[in-house]
Amino acid sequence: MAALIEANTNHASSYGADQYTAQLQNVVADHFGTDARANPVFNGTGANVIALQAMSSRWAGVICANWAHINTDEGGAPEKVGGLKLLAAPPDFTGKLTPDAIDSLARGFGDEHHAQPEVVSFAQTSELGRVYSIPELRDLCQSAHMHGMKVHMDGARIANAAAALGVTLREVTTDVGVDVLSFGGTKNGLMFGELVVALRPDDSDSLRYLRKTDMQLASKMRFISAQFLALLSDSLWLENASHANAMAKRLEQGLQDAQGIEILLPTDANAIFATVESGRIQEVTDRFGCLVVDEALSAIRIMTSFDTTESDVNDFLSFISS
Amino acid sequence: MAALIEANTNHASSYGADQYTAQLQNVVADHFGTDARANPVFNGTGANVIALQAMSSRWAGVICANWAHINTDEGGAPEKVGGLKLLAAPPDFTGKLTPDAIDSLARGFGDEHHAQPEVVSFAQTSELGRVYSIPELRDLCQSAHMHGMKVHMDGARIANAAAALGVTLREVTTDVGVDVLSFGGTKNGLMFGELVVALRPDDSDSLRYLRKTDMQLASKMRFISAQFLALLSDSLWLENASHANAMAKRLEQGLQDAQGIEILLPTDANAIFATVESGRIQEVTDRFGCLVVDEALSAIRIMTSFDTTESDVNDFLSFISS
Amino acid sequence: MAALIEANTNHASSYGADQYTAQLQNVVADHFGTDARANPVFNGTGANVIALQAMSSRWAGVICANWAHINTDEGGAPEKVGGLKLLAAPPDFTGKLTPDAIDSLARGFGDEHHAQPEVVSFAQTSELGRVYSIPELRDLCQSAHMHGMKVHMDGARIANAAAALGVTLREVTTDVGVDVLSFGGTKNGLMFGELVVALRPDDSDSLRYLRKTDMQLASKMRFISAQFLALLSDSLWLENASHANAMAKRLEQGLQDAQGIEILLPTDANAIFATVESGRIQEVTDRFGCLVVDEALSAIRIMTSFDTTESDVNDFLSFISS
Amino acid sequence: MAALIEANTNHASSYGADQYTAQLQNVVADHFGTDARANPVFNGTGANVIALQAMSSRWAGVICANWAHINTDEGGAPEKVGGLKLLAAPPDFTGKLTPDAIDSLARGFGDEHHAQPEVVSFAQTSELGRVYSIPELRDLCQSAHMHGMKVHMDGARIANAAAALGVTLREVTTDVGVDVLSFGGTKNGLMFGELVVALRPDDSDSLRYLRKTDMQLASKMRFISAQFLALLSDSLWLENASHANAMAKRLEQGLQDAQGIEILLPTDANAIFATVESGRIQEVTDRFGCLVVDEALSAIRIMTSFDTTESDVNDFLSFISS
Repeated sequence: MAALIEANTNHASSYGADQYTAQLQNVVADHFGTDARANPVFNGTGANVIALQAMSSRWAGVICANWAHINTDEGGAPEKVGGLKLLAAPPDFTGKLTPDAIDSLARGFGDEHHAQPEVVSFAQTSELGRVYSIPELRDLCQSAHMHGMKVHMDGARIANAAAALGVTLREVTTDVGVDVLSFGGTKNGLMFGELVVALRPDDSDSLRYLRKTDMQLASKMRFISAQFLALLSDSLWLENASHANAMAKRLEQGLQDAQGIEILLPTDANAIFATVESGRIQEVTDRFGCLVVDEALSAIRIMTSFDTTESDVNDFLSFISS
Repeated sequence: MAALIEANTNHASSYGADQYTAQLQNVVADHFGTDARANPVFNGTGANVIALQAMSSRWAGVICANWAHINTDEGGAPEKVGGLKLLAAPPDFTGKLTPDAIDSLARGFGDEHHAQPEVVSFAQTSELGRVYSIPELRDLCQSAHMHGMKVHMDGARIANAAAALGVTLREVTTDVGVDVLSFGGTKNGLMFGELVVALRPDDSDSLRYLRKTDMQLASKMRFISAQFLALLSDSLWLENASHANAMAKRLEQGLQDAQGIEILLPTDANAIFATVESGRIQEVTDRFGCLVVDEALSAIRIMTSFDTTESDVNDFLSFISS
Repeated sequence: MAALIEANTNHASSYGADQYTAQLQNVVADHFGTDARANPVFNGTGANVIALQAMSSRWAGVICANWAHINTDEGGAPEKVGGLKLLAAPPDFTGKLTPDAIDSLARGFGDEHHAQPEVVSFAQTSELGRVYSIPELRDLCQSAHMHGMKVHMDGARIANAAAALGVTLREVTTDVGVDVLSFGGTKNGLMFGELVVALRPDDSDSLRYLRKTDMQLASKMRFISAQFLALLSDSLWLENASHANAMAKRLEQGLQDAQGIEILLPTDANAIFATVESGRIQEVTDRFGCLVVDEALSAIRIMTSFDTTESDVNDFLSFISS
Repeated sequence: MAALIEANTNHASSYGADQYTAQLQNVVADHFGTDARANPVFNGTGANVIALQAMSSRWAGVICANWAHINTDEGGAPEKVGGLKLLAAPPDFTGKLTPDAIDSLARGFGDEHHAQPEVVSFAQTSELGRVYSIPELRDLCQSAHMHGMKVHMDGARIANAAAALGVTLREVTTDVGVDVLSFGGTKNGLMFGELVVALRPDDSDSLRYLRKTDMQLASKMRFISAQFLALLSDSLWLENASHANAMAKRLEQGLQDAQGIEILLPTDANAIFATVESGRIQEVTDRFGCLVVDEALSAIRIMTSFDTTESDVNDFLSFISS
């Protein structure tokens, strides 16, 4: 927020030709490597759909997990705006893709009846809150590259994953083989804005054109860039993410002995999946803004964030025990 | 073919303003009901993608079976040309949709994060060669309509299904509740051409515009219409389909005692799914043009058609036994 | 900015289910009429492309001026994201559409070879800085409606037009017959955000779905809504616009006697089009951020805005005279 | 037609893996050069839209004449299916593009606000019936290539142009610098089918995938290929075209002295543009199938074709004189 006030004080060039965006490129190169180039955009859907198109042809298929956000929660934007065919792996309880799943979906190359698999896309952390380990990421990227496909990481919550793994942003992206990254700002404390980061030189130009044509180019881009500068220049990104993870861990521990709630999945980062008594599901979502994941199971998702407090956690625990 | 020669003899109006297309409308009304209106198009992919768009908004999802041709074999055309999100049911061994599958996929209404389910699409016969019974069709259509969705039938092989069920074309489409039908010509003996048949009045105009914009409008439409007139005016469609079904039945019986082949699924119409010895799969597909369905299983699909002869069947049986 | 700080202080519901967005609906209804409903989006391209699709079919054409922003400066987004065919009137020196131009482009109805004209879109003020008078607007809208078309107003600079005409926002939109309005925030002082305002009830639902599918839905929508509340609740929008217009008038007057510059078009609101000496065009654009409109003519566009000061105007005048 | 009967006699591989399509490749290489590769498709709109996409990115603009068929008569297919922005030159009385028009439209390179000009497309013969000379074609292609753009020729009536110029098909395409050609079959006597001919190796693969995804892949492709073999193997294409041209010339001469009709444009090939008495326009279009080009001017287009007879010409002349 303070970053925005500063960016607001004087006239500046538009559409990215400003000093904040220029500085951001340096900061991004520090985090992700010298080839990395950031393209500020408005939101996560935009970041993902632009990234996928930049890496693919008009007849492409994109391999993803069944639970992938691009497959379930983007209102069909990859298909409608990108014209992309999603090739979704069968559902499992991690929300993670595996090299085996990639192998089984990476087929039909050269057969025009089959949307050509050109990109593998997965979210770190996964949509079910799980964190891919570094070896898992290496295997995934290697598997994709062996089939001649590129790798997109939906990093809406990558900061939480890096914090959980205790690694740098580069170690969890560029170094394991990711080609293009959607780097989440909104879920990490920003008011708005995401980055599409080309980690290799060859996708950079496409991203720039697609950002405009796909309606994600901000005229006053400095307001996005300034926020990311604040987030990435020091360790704010890591503090925010570590805090969110710590709050989730605290909540998980508190819930383990609670009655009326059952934790469904391990809490790797900042998401807890649990079932509550069906009679209380409405109350819990109204009061704490949780997402109902499965109505039949009375399953909810509880996200902690940069601004979740210990008091918030205690409130939730008291509510459940009451 | 004879129909084409006749249509070739003199100048005629283009883009459907010809006598053959006019006659075809009457014949189609006889088969499908007075509201039915046929739109000749070039191929099955075009028929399906135009049909689905005519029934849906720009933010639509289409419920279908995992094995649906629109989901697996159209090179991403529903997504790329139509901008449609396919909501595929989990795979099963019939390739059929069920009302339960529809119920589980028909969700998220009013939530813009979810592609809005507006159409249910299924193939009769299904892509795994099974025929939906009349009660099954009624249940499917009722289930779709109860959720406010429309029903599309991919009838690339509907003639085979009607022949197998011993019912009229109307009984298996209009009467059970189908809204728009892709009626297959090519697989029923034509050189080229399919019909998109609007069975209710309100989708007819959309189909006409979409046919042009989606590049499926034939300038010399009479050559498609004339072929369909030949197919539908008398009982040629039924003879062709019954013959194909009979040949499939004959082949199935012959294979039941054969060694080196195992039939995987019941043969309801004109498709046989079977596994062969993996060492012979190349030879059998080269020689008989079968499709490899699953390389790992060494599973193939054998289609019989209007021009399959008893001698063709005997050749296949001899080959397998040799 | 102050509005943003307030919106930032506590947890809030996402995707528009917040108090700021709710309040904004009331303020918008006060300005535009009780049927009006605002859809906050990210940028002007998004606002326009969503608006046009909400009013049209998949086979639509959109009538616009040759100079229309949607035709020249949106990187093909109407075509690529919306699938729309723009039917542009021949160029003139106002950038305005006329009823005659509409009449000549509103043809081919019912002929599927012709993209069906369904929407008329024009910018107030026009892209060449001219303001449509109220009678001109009435004639345009009447002409469009008589052909069965809807009317979209690109109101990136509508505040400047209303200020110049001395009328309310409603008088220049709803009352003259506009159906959907893109209401510009960024050019009127906001950091980011535009509104797509449905002025009639029937387009409202489509806008909501399209906003998500076309990647313009902000999760923290309150930050857009809060800015618009600040702009529209009192008369800030009018003060900003009036100030920008006054600065343009002041600059125009100063330039009339200047040497080395020739004003090309009347200055109705806050844009001045002028030719400068070709040797100085680089210097003037570098220093004042003007847009080069025509390199051959050495023509530039000078925009004044809410934060242009008298000192800025004087600087420009001194520079030109030096 | 005879070609079709032969192609109909026995089982054949589908989707282009047949002997007719294989032979066609050789014949096409003979006509257009060894790099040329033909992709049979269904219709002209499909041929053009696939060709343009194969040569361009997702953010491309296509330079064309105002009168271009792709701009006026394809129901918005380039925009809707291809996502392409057409950059149309101002109208003139030839329907031809010029290097000057290309130069004025080939701008905005590197500016993402501007759809990037990547392809120049023009029709030979032009939509107003004029034939580009060989030097004109060379200049056009050179101009396009100098700007880094590729060249598409809409050859719906290229046979008529080659016949009029007295050159080979290669001299009027490959040799002047065309990159991809839509070669018209339907207007040259076929029942259906066009070819997209890649004249350079690098566009060939894209065309194959786009043909399927854009719904132009014929399962029984041999029926298209066989017709083109008949047309191209000997000189049937040239005889058909020369005959059509001769009939147009004959008609033009007859009309020069006729009353009640005024020829508007020179007749280079097989199209005559003329104005008739407004009271007779309905009768003349009903009886001879002419197209009304401009209702206000009472202007019509009269096309002659491979099957126009001298008696048809005499009928028209008698009718006009009566």
